[in-house]
Amino acid sequence: MQERALATRSLILLGAARVFNQFGFNGSNLALAAEEAKVTKGAVYFHFSSKLELAKAVIAEQHRLVQEKIAENNRDEQRALAVMIASCQEFANLLQTDTVVKAGIRLTFEGPTFGLDVAGPYIDWIADMTQLALTAKEQGDINPDVDAKAFAMFLVGSFTGVQMVSEIISDRRELSKEIKNMWWSIGNTVFSEKARSDARISTLIEGPLEPLTPPEMA
Amino acid sequence: MQERALATRSLILLGAARVFNQFGFNGSNLALAAEEAKVTKGAVYFHFSSKLELAKAVIAEQHRLVQEKIAENNRDEQRALAVMIASCQEFANLLQTDTVVKAGIRLTFEGPTFGLDVAGPYIDWIADMTQLALTAKEQGDINPDVDAKAFAMFLVGSFTGVQMVSEIISDRRELSKEIKNMWWSIGNTVFSEKARSDARISTLIEGPLEPLTPPEMA
Repeated sequence: MQERALATRSLILLGAARVFNQFGFNGSNLALAAEEAKVTKGAVYFHFSSKLELAKAVIAEQHRLVQEKIAENNRDEQRALAVMIASCQEFANLLQTDTVVKAGIRLTFEGPTFGLDVAGPYIDWIADMTQLALTAKEQGDINPDVDAKAFAMFLVGSFTGVQMVSEIISDRRELSKEIKNMWWSIGNTVFSEKARSDARISTLIEGPLEPLTPPEMA
Repeated sequence: MQERALATRSLILLGAARVFNQFGFNGSNLALAAEEAKVTKGAVYFHFSSKLELAKAVIAEQHRLVQEKIAENNRDEQRALAVMIASCQEFANLLQTDTVVKAGIRLTFEGPTFGLDVAGPYIDWIADMTQLALTAKEQGDINPDVDAKAFAMFLVGSFTGVQMVSEIISDRRELSKEIKNMWWSIGNTVFSEKARSDARISTLIEGPLEPLTPPEMA
């Protein structure tokens, strides 16, 4: 694709992400995305044949952005447990700040309502986390009695639900803290003595957290 | 309402639950629910003015069923921590076996796509769990450094996500085990020494779990 076409495609994806964030899949259409991206409807149709294709492209772009950020942050990190914690934290940050990431996750949640198979991303994510957990066990940071795959399933489920409830209750205002609290809650069971006494790991989860008081619930 | 009208209403709710489970909110309508319940369309309209009203009634019935089962199971239970664990386990069982409960949760997840405010049930559930966690701290079963409200938020988020990912990956086939694994993962951080050495609490979470291998991921 030419540079200019690529730039237009990026603009469309960002415009579409804004529209999907506001109206969800059902309430969105290509015309609204074109308007938001300040391009013609023809330009949108040139790149995407349907709303479903556009939604899939937003999800793919979200996935790419998250992977890129995580890889960037962990380029020099040798400890798998640190990578696991930092990845969740980075994902939480992006869910609080990045329009495309927010839209991608909203569309993934809505996927089953418009016939999109969403198992793939979860299966991939669980497989990645299983590998990291196995390495962390070899590195002595995760306790030997932790089953790597069961732990990865739990972690992915837990992260997914914590961010979802956080969005519903408080528009993810406290998500970073809530994800740290997730890690803290499992720390004594899952982390080895060595990991728990490690300054860098402690910094990542910040030890026992200050009380969370989501404004809506006070 | 007369007894016969109540019986018809129950039939309609069960029929509607089957339809919502299969097709989601978007793919369902009152005619399909009538057909599934083996009643006339007129009977459905007599009880429910719209698909939205019918969906809300299924969610309300799911909530009632879960509360009733939990109350029944915990009638003689004095320990708040045991109530928390058993409630999650009972909810998991219902999500694996009860058509109305499955449909209610599917509709709650889909709610934001058809304009239903779904914050209420989560806020109520977090408030209940916060109260139980406070009592469990007083009873010496939950560690003093656990913030009751933050823990309740985490627990509700975690349960929600674990059951959701379980549904996507394996139609909730292993959900009971996965919820036990959730409790096991947080046990050493959250539970007091006293709770951890208690035979009844240990039975509820069944100690370190056997490896989970969801068939689709093997």
